[in-house]
Amino acid sequence: MPSPTRSTRSRTKNPGSQSALRHLNQQRIIECLLAGPSTQAELARQTGLSTATVSNIVKIMQDAGLASTEPITSSGRRALNVRLNSNGAVAVGIDFGRRHLRVVLASLSYHVIAEESVLLPLGHHAEEGIQAAVGVLDRLLASSGVERSALVGAGVGIPGPIDRRTGTVAQGAILPEWVGINILKRLEEALDLPVFVDNDANLGALSEVTWGPHSGVSNLMFLKIGSGIGAGLILNGVPYYGNVGITGEIGHATIHEHGLICRCGNRGCLETIASTTTMIELLSRGEDRPLTPGDIVRKALERDSATLRVVDDAGLAVGRALGNVANLINPEVIVVGGPLAGLGELLLDPIRRGLIRHAVPVIGETTTLTMSSLGDRAEALGATALVFQHAGIRRN
Amino acid sequence: MPSPTRSTRSRTKNPGSQSALRHLNQQRIIECLLAGPSTQAELARQTGLSTATVSNIVKIMQDAGLASTEPITSSGRRALNVRLNSNGAVAVGIDFGRRHLRVVLASLSYHVIAEESVLLPLGHHAEEGIQAAVGVLDRLLASSGVERSALVGAGVGIPGPIDRRTGTVAQGAILPEWVGINILKRLEEALDLPVFVDNDANLGALSEVTWGPHSGVSNLMFLKIGSGIGAGLILNGVPYYGNVGITGEIGHATIHEHGLICRCGNRGCLETIASTTTMIELLSRGEDRPLTPGDIVRKALERDSATLRVVDDAGLAVGRALGNVANLINPEVIVVGGPLAGLGELLLDPIRRGLIRHAVPVIGETTTLTMSSLGDRAEALGATALVFQHAGIRRN
Repeated sequence: MPSPTRSTRSRTKNPGSQSALRHLNQQRIIECLLAGPSTQAELARQTGLSTATVSNIVKIMQDAGLASTEPITSSGRRALNVRLNSNGAVAVGIDFGRRHLRVVLASLSYHVIAEESVLLPLGHHAEEGIQAAVGVLDRLLASSGVERSALVGAGVGIPGPIDRRTGTVAQGAILPEWVGINILKRLEEALDLPVFVDNDANLGALSEVTWGPHSGVSNLMFLKIGSGIGAGLILNGVPYYGNVGITGEIGHATIHEHGLICRCGNRGCLETIASTTTMIELLSRGEDRPLTPGDIVRKALERDSATLRVVDDAGLAVGRALGNVANLINPEVIVVGGPLAGLGELLLDPIRRGLIRHAVPVIGETTTLTMSSLGDRAEALGATALVFQHAGIRRN
Repeated sequence: MPSPTRSTRSRTKNPGSQSALRHLNQQRIIECLLAGPSTQAELARQTGLSTATVSNIVKIMQDAGLASTEPITSSGRRALNVRLNSNGAVAVGIDFGRRHLRVVLASLSYHVIAEESVLLPLGHHAEEGIQAAVGVLDRLLASSGVERSALVGAGVGIPGPIDRRTGTVAQGAILPEWVGINILKRLEEALDLPVFVDNDANLGALSEVTWGPHSGVSNLMFLKIGSGIGAGLILNGVPYYGNVGITGEIGHATIHEHGLICRCGNRGCLETIASTTTMIELLSRGEDRPLTPGDIVRKALERDSATLRVVDDAGLAVGRALGNVANLINPEVIVVGGPLAGLGELLLDPIRRGLIRHAVPVIGETTTLTMSSLGDRAEALGATALVFQHAGIRRN
């Protein structure tokens, strides 16, 4: 369940488009500089760009605080040495949840400088969440000594689809209080920074191929199982956003044609069978208070038989949906994340059985299924990667 | 149901990779030249590349017969003018079917120079098909006057998945006689040309965004409904091949958990409900001979009620599977092709109802569903586009 805003990875439809070309050229130069400082002449040689092009782009990067230069002597000749500013370029990652908020400061070299997570009241209004984020960011800047001028932008994760056409949180979000708000505009005002918004599952996928262990993977799906079920996609090495920015809505795959009514208005969607909300409903009968996702993990690890059955049923249904997905996009890796990640093989095993049962054999055999190792930091870390991506900095 | 071979659109993982960089730079130069001839100095200015880089690439293109140069005087100074060879660079497109073979010769400017389609016996061996293709190509060269030296390569469509890891036709192909054959190697020997193989549905998708009316579309799915049901994907503007090259296997989406056994070994797959094979089985009871796909189209257009019902049921099932697909990849356009294309709205209407019923509302509302306008030429035309793609020539 994705969405980007400001995330238009446009192909170079118009070869003459100077800004698209400049962006591509800058990305090449940054890729060279990630390996270490280099002279302008050497950058021109490595990229095939003219020295005038290199010098223009270096100037722009210098003005943006991304790079610095110093005159040196190379082979007896005067040259200009260029280096990326690692302390001089810091990204903010913000993850908004239903009842929490996490803020991370990260350097260009993918190092966490500071991090804080706070609880928010259930049903809080968007504005309340935004003000809390501003407060946490101020505290992190003060405690870490990072200058505000070093911030290159903020990446923000929202647990719901964002309509690219309007920049607003769309219907179907797990945070109903945020629906219809132009989140991008409001956050840019509040943070006074360039802001890049994306949905939590997309950021999970991005974090796996940047901060996580899957940096060599071109085609990856991150599946978040929580109160909603959504997927983020990395296809051909880049985040995939589709036509209007709403992708990975695997929670609304039809499993039972005449099943329960879903919040999306359809029937028998995967979410009506395998979301934590449904699992909690099934397992809370006769309990004093509703269970939490943490309770499900604990009881399953204690081998409570009803919990194991509910987890198994949910996993099989997820696996069936994944089988159809794998048949379509043939990912190399599917990473499962969300509050049930602590279940480990207890959840992965039925998912794998469902996947293999429903996928075309060669696809079932070659798809790696694994649990996320980034835990509840995945979205905030992915949000910092979103900022670097837009600055033209990939880490692969 | 896709597969490419030689089709590795790798991302530039290693920024220093000279061949990847050369390919990218060549693509930029060709994109400029598609607008018309240009001097080397002008090419350097437009692309930001150094004049040395431009001159190297032009030399390589000249040697490959893709471009030619002539000295001119520009603003009183001597310059080298570069033009793409349109007659000098011809692509061969070959489409192998169960009982037909089509060969097309196309120029760089996407103009068909010559074309021939021949029938092949049902159950023919791969070698028989390859020899027939060699014969048709020779005839087309003779009749059109195109020199063999002008051929830059051959694109070949196969109605089945091709395993990228081995270059062989994989299990599940509609042409069982071709399974296990290293089609790429055999064709390169027989044709004495660089060969690019892809599956028919992928080529259908490629033809829609090159030869067809959808050239501005970044995210398109081509759905071929025939004896098999498979899809080709254009995502972020380029053909999508996934991990092992087998994608778009929507024919094996589970519709009925306990439905009929499918040729893939699963149950209740879409193909067991909506392929032409199933439709023919349902409608041939009591007939003297089995119907053909053409008969289905004719009888439906004559408003035969049983045929209309079978088409409607098939369309609804296809639409249900498409709803789940659209939820995942949010395409802008879904194009339906194959031997039932003549049904027009009789088939599109139930597909559309199924799609809207099963997709998340905003996705159902914004996905365009349309019939292919390229008919049975889609695959062969797409095969020529595959050759130009590999020469770095896109048409968007």
